[in-house]
Amino acid sequence: MKRKILVDMDGVLADVYKPLIKKQYTDKGYSKTEQDLNGIEERKAFPDIISILQEKGFFRNAPVMDGSIEGLKYLNDKYDVVIVSSATEFPGCLDDKHAWLAVHFPFINWKQMIFCGVKSDISADMMLDDHPKNLSVFKGKRYIFTQPHNFSIENETYRRVNNWAEIMEIL
Amino acid sequence: MKRKILVDMDGVLADVYKPLIKKQYTDKGYSKTEQDLNGIEERKAFPDIISILQEKGFFRNAPVMDGSIEGLKYLNDKYDVVIVSSATEFPGCLDDKHAWLAVHFPFINWKQMIFCGVKSDISADMMLDDHPKNLSVFKGKRYIFTQPHNFSIENETYRRVNNWAEIMEIL
Repeated sequence: MKRKILVDMDGVLADVYKPLIKKQYTDKGYSKTEQDLNGIEERKAFPDIISILQEKGFFRNAPVMDGSIEGLKYLNDKYDVVIVSSATEFPGCLDDKHAWLAVHFPFINWKQMIFCGVKSDISADMMLDDHPKNLSVFKGKRYIFTQPHNFSIENETYRRVNNWAEIMEIL
Repeated sequence: MKRKILVDMDGVLADVYKPLIKKQYTDKGYSKTEQDLNGIEERKAFPDIISILQEKGFFRNAPVMDGSIEGLKYLNDKYDVVIVSSATEFPGCLDDKHAWLAVHFPFINWKQMIFCGVKSDISADMMLDDHPKNLSVFKGKRYIFTQPHNFSIENETYRRVNNWAEIMEIL
């Protein structure tokens, strides 16, 4: 039986920084680079425009993370993949997220999707996520996907992966 | 710490038989009573109109199961309730289900919701569900909520509950 891995969406499959930076620049006339945002929580990095996460269309139009299509295909062949996304916090985004997965990752079927509020009740062998709040309550092997907000986090129970090419080397 | 109970939506909180029977009668000119449907699988009971489940609005407009608002309030005070709904099979229904919960059960917050394809990866102390496919893979205490499709099912690992008044007596 294949081992099971939970794969996060935002910050792992979906690149949420690019549209947030773009929105901040367009609306407010300024923005920082991803490097400038290293070590800063997402809500603190974009306090003036973070409400865009609640707007219909944001998740539907998010760009795919570099290398994630090839990488997820690789994981999907080797492991029992379940996509787990914190989504119920954002009313009206669930259909967007479902449709986004179907468009960009059509090899993932509906049985492999979970949209939830918290991830603590979901069990598997491995978890790939960018948020320590999700990894910290997971009982299996923990992989933290590098994103600016988690750049400074060091935790010996997390294995850090910096991009999808690295995931394909390690996993 | 409160014990955790997973509560299903369709056939437990939402009454899906009433709108299916109504749709069949309206579109096809015939229908059966819920009693006539005892022991028949849902897809076999409504083969000619079951595609309505895929239509936007079906889940948004489903009636609330008798006694479920009071009953779920009772469970929510006593236990750690998580609503778990098989939903990803029906594209476009996720926002409907989320909105339906918010309207009818506003005391359930977004952290208490899971919309998934299969329920086998979600763990808790108890599960209340009408479908044996969900109960059979659950490791905790299993409560089967009587619906016509499960009427004939006897399984000594399930405790049968016939309505929400019974749930409030037992749990």
